[in-house]
This record gives sequence, C-alpha cells and structure tokens, in this order.
Amino acid sequence: MLLSSTLLDQAVDQLATLPGIGRRTAMRMALDLLRRDVNEVARFSEAVRRLREEVVYCRECCNISDQPVCAICGNPARDRSLICVVEDIRDVIAIENTHQYKGLYHVLGGVISPMDGVGPDNLHTKELMGRIAQGGVREVILALGATLEGDTTSFFLDRKLAAAGIQVSMIARGISIGGDLDQVDEVTLGRSITDRKPYQGSGAR
Amino acid sequence: MLLSSTLLDQAVDQLATLPGIGRRTAMRMALDLLRRDVNEVARFSEAVRRLREEVVYCRECCNISDQPVCAICGNPARDRSLICVVEDIRDVIAIENTHQYKGLYHVLGGVISPMDGVGPDNLHTKELMGRIAQGGVREVILALGATLEGDTTSFFLDRKLAAAGIQVSMIARGISIGGDLDQVDEVTLGRSITDRKPYQGSGAR
Repeated sequence: MLLSSTLLDQAVDQLATLPGIGRRTAMRMALDLLRRDVNEVARFSEAVRRLREEVVYCRECCNISDQPVCAICGNPARDRSLICVVEDIRDVIAIENTHQYKGLYHVLGGVISPMDGVGPDNLHTKELMGRIAQGGVREVILALGATLEGDTTSFFLDRKLAAAGIQVSMIARGISIGGDLDQVDEVTLGRSITDRKPYQGSGAR
Repeated sequence: MLLSSTLLDQAVDQLATLPGIGRRTAMRMALDLLRRDVNEVARFSEAVRRLREEVVYCRECCNISDQPVCAICGNPARDRSLICVVEDIRDVIAIENTHQYKGLYHVLGGVISPMDGVGPDNLHTKELMGRIAQGGVREVILALGATLEGDTTSFFLDRKLAAAGIQVSMIARGISIGGDLDQVDEVTLGRSITDRKPYQGSGAR
C-alpha cells in the first residue's frame, strides 16, 4: 500500500506494530485519529509516550506502580511469607478479583520464550531470588499460563527455588467450574484425570 | 478494572478509544509498548501526534497529501472533466489499484450519518460544489459504500449536482465477478436483477 502522504504512511506503520493489528486496521485507526480534535490526539500521543518514559515498577514485586512500593507490597495485612509468581499485571488483577489470595506477588514481566529471544535474564527472576535471599518467604506459588513457555518457566523457577530450600507449589489445572466434560480439550481432561484428588464432597458426610 | 498505576490506566483508556479496541486489547497493547525500547515508543507517539498536527489535505480533492496539490490532481494526464466522489483515502487507493479510472477524485471525508452527528457541512461537500462552479467538469461519479449512510449521501449529492447541471452517475452494484449466486445476499441479488443490462456476450457474436 503506497500512500499519498508520508505522515499517514508512518502513522499506519507505527499503529500496525501493535499486537494483533494489521495494516488495514491500522489505516482505519489513523483515519479515525484524523477525524478527532487535535488536542484529543495530543492527549492520546502523550499518554502513550509518558507510559513508557515515566513508568515505575514496584521495587519489591516488579509490578507496574505509581509508587516505589506498590499498594499490595505496602499493605501490612498481606501474608509476606507467601509469593505468587505471575507473568504480568493482568494476572495480578485477575487473582486479586478472586479475593482468595492474601499473600504477595512477583511479576516476571513475561515467560521464557527462546523463539522470541526471551531468556531468564530478560525476566525479573534475579529480583525474585533477591527477595528469597532476604528470608521470611515460606512458599512460592507458580501461577503461570498453561503453555509450553509457561511450563518451561515454571520448571526453571522450581529448580532455582528448590535449591534455595523454598516450598514450591503450582496453581491447580483441570476442568473449569461449571464446565461440561465434552467441551474440554483432551489434554486438559487427560491431565485432570492424572491429577485427580480424593473425593471430599461439598460438605460434611 | 482498577489499575495500580495512573499512567497505565490513562494509556489503556486512550488506546481503548481506537475503533474496534476494547479495554482488554488496549491493556495487551499497553503491555506490549512497555516491553519496547523507550525511543521506539517515542517514535510511535510522535508519528500519531504529527499525523494529526501536520496533516495536509489536497486543496483540490481534499485527499490526505504531503503537498498543497496531491499527485493525482497535479497529474496533467488525468481527465479533469471527470470527478469520482469517495468517502476516504482507502477508496482512492482501491480504485487506483484497478487501473481503470483516469479522472480525478473528490474525498468527502465521511458520509452523512445523523446517528454520529455527521451532516453535509461536516463533509467536503462545499469544496466539491466549488470545483463544479469553476467549470470544466462534465460528469461526477458517486462511488460511496452501499450502506444506508452511503445511499443518503449519494441522494443528497445527486440533487445538488443535478441542480448545477452536472451529469451524475453511480458505480454499478451487483454480484461480484467470480461470485456464486447462492453466496450473494438477497438484497444485492434482487438489485442485480432490477438493474439488469442487455446481454453483450464476452466477444463478437
């Protein structure tokens, strides 16, 4: 697509770098931006630039934050002996929304993915081991995605953490609550059979 | 979704204003931008800001351009007595790619859409009538989308142009070349029967 304007061409090129956005959608976005007020677009551009330039990561859990220590790490009511390792801030939000977890987090910032050139050193693994070395941590819960990359990262972290004498656990994988068996993919279903637990019923027997 | 960072929150809000992008996708985009080099994100932000601030429209056809007069309007080989009215630059690119059209264009910048608060005054209709008033235009081809808004706009322009004594035509609508009849929606098929043409065969008879 050769456009009549270098400005438009460059904007479309840049918008097309966003994940999941092709040049056709990028063009639609550019034309939408062109129809807006100039100050509105300036605010858009500014929000993106400031996000990257002024972002602060919590110095304990490496989560995106506005403060040197995030609200979760700074909360004295949280159980500091428990660290849940997640990929990014979305997982923190998802787990917080369950209201089931009262420990701290550690945000890796990704998972090990040799295909994308992401190794352990590109993640916040050193910071995690630093927190362990400070002592007081009893258990680390690995809550990474059920993908090849997530599994690789869990395997890597388990070896490092076990060597440091930490109890390592992993979130349960199986069929969803309310899920029909015939809707579940066979790998998950097979694994939910292998990982079966003694029947406990839903109350006292 | 309440985030731990105002910066992230604002960037997600802004990205979610893009057409077709919800907050979940906007979050994925924001995290992708955070993983990039700071200069790369600055270039992204700059391209978007400059697009809106420095954009130039061709003073003849209102297409997005780098020059006061675009390459098509400035080309002496084009037929200046023929103007094809389109919605935006994408349509110009699409028609140019057919290599079937040698006239000029007029880019409206949208279509009449009362639902979105877009009336004739928000489009480049005045500029079109100005070009007609200068004389030398024999025919105007309406090449707007086959939607309610496109039809409304075509109807409006036809009345104005006919009053100015201009021959108005409309691009043909019907079944696609290579299309199967049973794949076509009934409105298009019905219209292609109403708008039937005398059979001419594919060569000499």
